[in-house]
Formats: sequence, structure tokens, C-alpha cells
Amino acid sequence: MRQTNLFSKTRYDAPKDEVSKNASLLIRGGFIHKEMAGVYSLLPLGLRVIEKITKIVREEMENLGGQEISMTALQGKEIWEKTDRFDDKKVDNWFKTTLKNGTELGLAFTHEEPITELLKDHVKSYRDLPFSVFQFQTKFRNETRAKSGILRTREFLMKDLYSFSKDEEEHKAFYEKSKVAYTNIFRRAGVGDKTFLTVASGGSFSTEFSHEYQTETPAGEDTIYYDKEKNIAINKEVLNDETIKSLGVNKSKLEEKKSIEVGNIYSLGDFYSKPLGLVYSDEKGEKKPVIMGSYGIGIPRLMGAIAEVYGSDSGIVWPKEVAPFSVHIILATLENKELVEFAENLYKDLKDKGVEVLLDDRDVRAGEKFNDADLIGIPKRIVLGQKNFENGEVEVIDRETRETKLLKKENFLTDFLK
Amino acid sequence: MRQTNLFSKTRYDAPKDEVSKNASLLIRGGFIHKEMAGVYSLLPLGLRVIEKITKIVREEMENLGGQEISMTALQGKEIWEKTDRFDDKKVDNWFKTTLKNGTELGLAFTHEEPITELLKDHVKSYRDLPFSVFQFQTKFRNETRAKSGILRTREFLMKDLYSFSKDEEEHKAFYEKSKVAYTNIFRRAGVGDKTFLTVASGGSFSTEFSHEYQTETPAGEDTIYYDKEKNIAINKEVLNDETIKSLGVNKSKLEEKKSIEVGNIYSLGDFYSKPLGLVYSDEKGEKKPVIMGSYGIGIPRLMGAIAEVYGSDSGIVWPKEVAPFSVHIILATLENKELVEFAENLYKDLKDKGVEVLLDDRDVRAGEKFNDADLIGIPKRIVLGQKNFENGEVEVIDRETRETKLLKKENFLTDFLK
Repeated sequence: MRQTNLFSKTRYDAPKDEVSKNASLLIRGGFIHKEMAGVYSLLPLGLRVIEKITKIVREEMENLGGQEISMTALQGKEIWEKTDRFDDKKVDNWFKTTLKNGTELGLAFTHEEPITELLKDHVKSYRDLPFSVFQFQTKFRNETRAKSGILRTREFLMKDLYSFSKDEEEHKAFYEKSKVAYTNIFRRAGVGDKTFLTVASGGSFSTEFSHEYQTETPAGEDTIYYDKEKNIAINKEVLNDETIKSLGVNKSKLEEKKSIEVGNIYSLGDFYSKPLGLVYSDEKGEKKPVIMGSYGIGIPRLMGAIAEVYGSDSGIVWPKEVAPFSVHIILATLENKELVEFAENLYKDLKDKGVEVLLDDRDVRAGEKFNDADLIGIPKRIVLGQKNFENGEVEVIDRETRETKLLKKENFLTDFLK
Repeated sequence: MRQTNLFSKTRYDAPKDEVSKNASLLIRGGFIHKEMAGVYSLLPLGLRVIEKITKIVREEMENLGGQEISMTALQGKEIWEKTDRFDDKKVDNWFKTTLKNGTELGLAFTHEEPITELLKDHVKSYRDLPFSVFQFQTKFRNETRAKSGILRTREFLMKDLYSFSKDEEEHKAFYEKSKVAYTNIFRRAGVGDKTFLTVASGGSFSTEFSHEYQTETPAGEDTIYYDKEKNIAINKEVLNDETIKSLGVNKSKLEEKKSIEVGNIYSLGDFYSKPLGLVYSDEKGEKKPVIMGSYGIGIPRLMGAIAEVYGSDSGIVWPKEVAPFSVHIILATLENKELVEFAENLYKDLKDKGVEVLLDDRDVRAGEKFNDADLIGIPKRIVLGQKNFENGEVEVIDRETRETKLLKKENFLTDFLK
């Protein structure tokens, strides 16, 4: 893409009411627009990052055998009353709305109830199990406070996967496989080293633990205790002698970390299938409740966690696989005709090779271009400056390693792609 | 995909409360699930069709130079009060909701106001214009009645594009280009022959006409009058002698058609930019309001229109470019080991060639497979039956042309792909 064609602009300051590091940087870089507290729109660069993350998550969910669907935000109360979750006293973050005839509806904050109900038309026999379904769908959550930028918002895209098994054993096998998929996702998104499998409460669903994926960052709302040797963390909420003993971790070596929950996986047992009546006939014709699991990742939250980890005051350096573009060509001056021609050819050649490239072809000062490039944070930068070019050279900057090198302009494309 | 891995099932009957042809067929085929009147979830096959349509629309919007963004459903009232559109007496299909602190919010039924407000951070000078932005985003509309299946729903994915120009002349040039993009979309979606550019009211925005794209179907809620020679239709709402004269159509030759509006394009002038203050500085430094246009397509509505046009009681025959899969392999029996092996190899080979293929490998009667295949409606069908196979032949059915042919099983793949 040419930067002259990009409508969104960077800005020097974030809005005064924006206190979070992630949203401040993302607003300054022209990735997102703040509609109100906890509600952010995606500009072209931000949407590109979200789509990169979505692609990673989709591939890993498909590898797990997940089938993609898309459920609705609008929810009738009947099915939620069966699990006693429609009442605002029981679930305190509903957004509710009303049909013209006065019928009260909810805006889904999650989808366990509707997916369980939906599957009653499709699951009959043990031969239909196991399977899993997932979606990328907008959740609405009526958060009281929303001061963490895109880490905790009132409307956000979530990947939620649900698994359906005949029994606990079959469920456990899938649950373990899901851990591998989640580990892959956070590694590919660039936060693998900072993200820890964390033991947490099983909630109302299970007396066993659930698991969270927690990314270390000072902006995190959670506190975890990490055992490096065992490579497992414990959420503060379940940190006690019993937990420590059951996990066999070394109490004296636990490191305390602030972190943000970027994913979670839950065993649900028959918590939903029983009251909603999702049953199957086993080999003997006996009706049994389907055993379920749920597996969530908030997509913008993961983007926010990446911004927290890879952001500094001058901008974010995006990890390769989630960057809005792979290469940023900075044409430092438009004065030199030969240089402009080189830039145009390079832009075309890279695109032809399938490289996603942003060309800064704007008629502004070089300093402005460099500041903006820092804010946009594309990991590889090609600087086409007058002086180097006259010496037959082109500067290439790897923003991750901070390595800078000069390549000969002859044969540049081949050397650059090496 | 293997049909044994597809969790969704076909069904003999649609729910009793479903009166529309499109939703009845789509529910029976396992494409959608009815959550409540006017609210439908997408099952794997339905999501695939929606994604095919989305791909076509995205490509055509990108060809127009559109930049993709994603705005939010939650809307504060301030900006909508500037155009006097927050009041339920002025806009009668809002869904409203409330923050914990009592602040009333709306769920966007369209996005002219927020995109205009958003762009005030990004448009300063005539050099920033023209450009266009688009999104695929969920709209909420509090419809009083919702009896047309997915043609008119309370929650649906919409492609909305907005154009921003310096003056009417620049706007008109884009507006005309958008017509070409829209014509391409409906042609590629398979309803080109049945879809007519239609003159309609300019609404509150303009004394000039707007344009709609109307697809002929008995299920349509609109009535249009089509002049075949001029290849233009007139919406009943603006059919009068003045319109007929201004378009130069032949009154006596107008054909009346029932139709469904599958797209619309509007000139908005400064209707939004003026009250919201989206201005630019022209070459002389004078501030002028940006001239806007809006261009909508309801994605599930287009899917519904296709279902109406290509549906019969036995199922829908999907046009090639929007079909959930390109090829359906029906393995009529699992008894013949050689036949099963042939099917498995063919399935693998087609996938390797990049063909999207569904393999019916279920252990059910052949008759059930054929019924289900009709309901799913994949345009090309390969029938692997015992008898033909023993004669060294494989049956291929083109469901669109109803052409059936027998190909030799030797060299089948090459002959089939020819």
C-alpha cells in the first residue's frame, strides 16, 4: 500500500482521557479510534493486525478439527434462564435491550447456552461425537470501569471454541490438545516467551482447575506465581498450600508477576448440557449428557498485550507474524528522480513477490516519515536516502534486533530477500 | 471436507414458524439456525457461503480503492443528536441499551455519523481527498415484523462503504464507478440477470434520485417497473410522469416486477459533514464540508436473494462463485473397497489441486445421500456408484445445466477438470 493512499494519520498525542499504554500507542499510530471508554473502532492498520491474529488463531483451531460457525449477539432469555444466567444479579455484565413488542433481549457476553441449544438439532448419537466448533464473534460486556485500553472493552471480537465429547476421558484428550494449539498461537503472535500456562479456578463448572494463558506485563490486572523449573504458573486466586502441593511446585522459588489473561480453557462437564438437554444415545441406547469444554481468546486483548510487551514511547515494534505490513519502504526525499524510480520499482517487485509492503511516498520531511514509521512499527524498514543512494547503497533496518546494514543497490532485491 | 466430520445435519422440515422460502431451505440444508424471529446463526455451510459473498464484495470494494475498517455497534448519543437521529421518534428501528452508570447507548443500524466523526481526526486538507472506506460489520435493526427469513433480519452483516470527495463532480465520478463495482458483485454472485439498477428516492439527503439494485423474486417486498430497452428500473415509490420523462423510458413498455433490494447507493452531499463538522481546507485555505456518499449491501440478504432465485422444494443450486464447496463427491456405497479407495484418492487429488470438495463418506443409504446433496446444493456432483464403477465409469452431474455425463474412471481427474 502507498502511504499517500492511507487515510488514517498518526498523531503526536493520545486523547487526554486515554490512560493505558496500549491504546495510547495504538491511537497515536493510527491503528484504532476511541469511540468512548471501552469502545474502539479499528482503522486500516489496526484491522490488518487483528486479521493477522485471527488468521493464526483460525489455523490453529482448524488444526484442532474445529468447525467454524457464527452465532448472534441478540439472545432470547428462555435458554439463559435454564442455567439461571439471565438475571442481572447472577451475571453482572449483561447489556440488555428490548424488542418493539417489549420482549427483553440480551447481548451475548459468551455463547455456551446458545451453542448447547443449537446442537440439540444436530447431536443424536455417540456416532456424532466428539467434535468442536468455534467462531470469531463480537461479545458485549457491560464493564463498570474500562481503563485498560483494548485489554478490557465493552465490545470486542472473541474467538470462542466449544468442544463436545462423550465422556470425561474423551474431553480430557481434546483439552490437552487445545493446550498445544494455544501455545502455538501465543508463540506465533510473538508473546510465547512472556506467556505462561497458569492454573486457575474451575469456576462454577468444576472442582478441578481451569487453565489460563497469562502474558507478563506491568499493565496486567492479574497476579501469577511462576515456577520456572516446572514451567507452570498459579493464579493468585488459587494460590494456597493445597494447590502448591498438588502441582508439586517449589513454593520458595515462585516468582510473582503482573500479567494479563490472554486466553483460557475450561472443562464444563455437563453444566450446560444437562439443564439445556443436550444428550446423546450411547452404544446401549442410553441417553447421556454431552461433556463440554470452552476455550476463549479475546482477539483485541491479545493485540493489546502485544502492544504492551513490544511498545515503547516511540511506538510498537510488531512481531513478524502479526505486523500490519512486513516491510516499510521510507523514501526519504522525492527530489531525486532516480531514487523515486528505484523506490517505485522496489515497491512493485516486493508486491509481486507476495511481500506485504507499505511505501512512504508522502511529500513530507524525512524526520516526520521516521517518526511515523516508529509509531506504525513495521519490523523491517528499507530507508532510501539521498546520501547512501549516491554511494550506491540502501539502508536496511531490522527493528526487532536493531540491526542496521547497508546493501548495494545493485542486486538489492535478491540480497534483501536472502 | 468429509461429511462425517460436518456436525450440522440436514432436516426434513423447517420449523413450523418459518414461513419464508429462503430460510426454510437454508435451515433444511443445515446452513443456518433460527435463534428467534429475524435472528439467525450461521452453521459451517452457511458461513462458507457468507464468506464467498464477502470475498467477492471485498475484492470489488478494494478495486474501487476502498480501505477496510471496522467500527463498533455501541454508539454514544452525542454525535447522533447532531443529525437529530438518536430520537426513537425520528429513527424507529433503534435497539437501545444502557451502561451501568445509566448512560443510554444505541446499537448502530448504520454508520454515517460515527465515520464522519472519526474522520475529523484524519481529514484536514484537499490533499487528503478523495478516498473511501468500507467495513463488514454487524448492524442491529429493531424490525417490527421479521417474516422474510434472512431477507430482513434484526441483526446482520452489512458491507457499508462511505466515499469522501471535495465536491459534487468528484463525488459523481466515484458514484458512477461504484455502479460498475455493484454490477460486478451481483453478476459474480450469480444474480446478474435478475438484478436491475433501479431509480429510487434520494431520501432526506438529496433531491436527486438514489439508486438501488433490485433482484427479481416473488418474495420481494418492493415493486419495480423495468424498461428492458434502457435497462433501467424505477422503484414504485418514485414512479410518476416526471420520473418517466426525466429518464426517457417508455411508459407503455414498463414491466412490473416484485423484487428485493440487494444493494443501494446514495449521494449524501453535506447532510452529515455539515452538522458534524467534517471540513477540509481547499487550495485557497477556505474551509468546505466534505461531500459524502454511502453504498450498502446486506450480505445475508444477498444470500437470501440467491436462495430465493435458485431454490426449489428439493434444495438450492448455488451459483459457482458462492457455493459452499465446488464439488460434491457422493460415495453411494461403502461396500466396494475399490470404490472407496477411488473416492479417497479423488478427494485427496481434488484438494491438492485447490478444489473445494465435500466428500459424502457417511454410512447411510444412497437415497439419503442424494436428498441431502440436493439440499446442500453444490453445483458439481460426482456420483461414485457400484454399477457404473463396474462398467469402468463415473457419473458427473452439472446441477446448473442439469447435464449428466459418464466419464471413464481411467484418467478421470484430468477429464473432469477439463
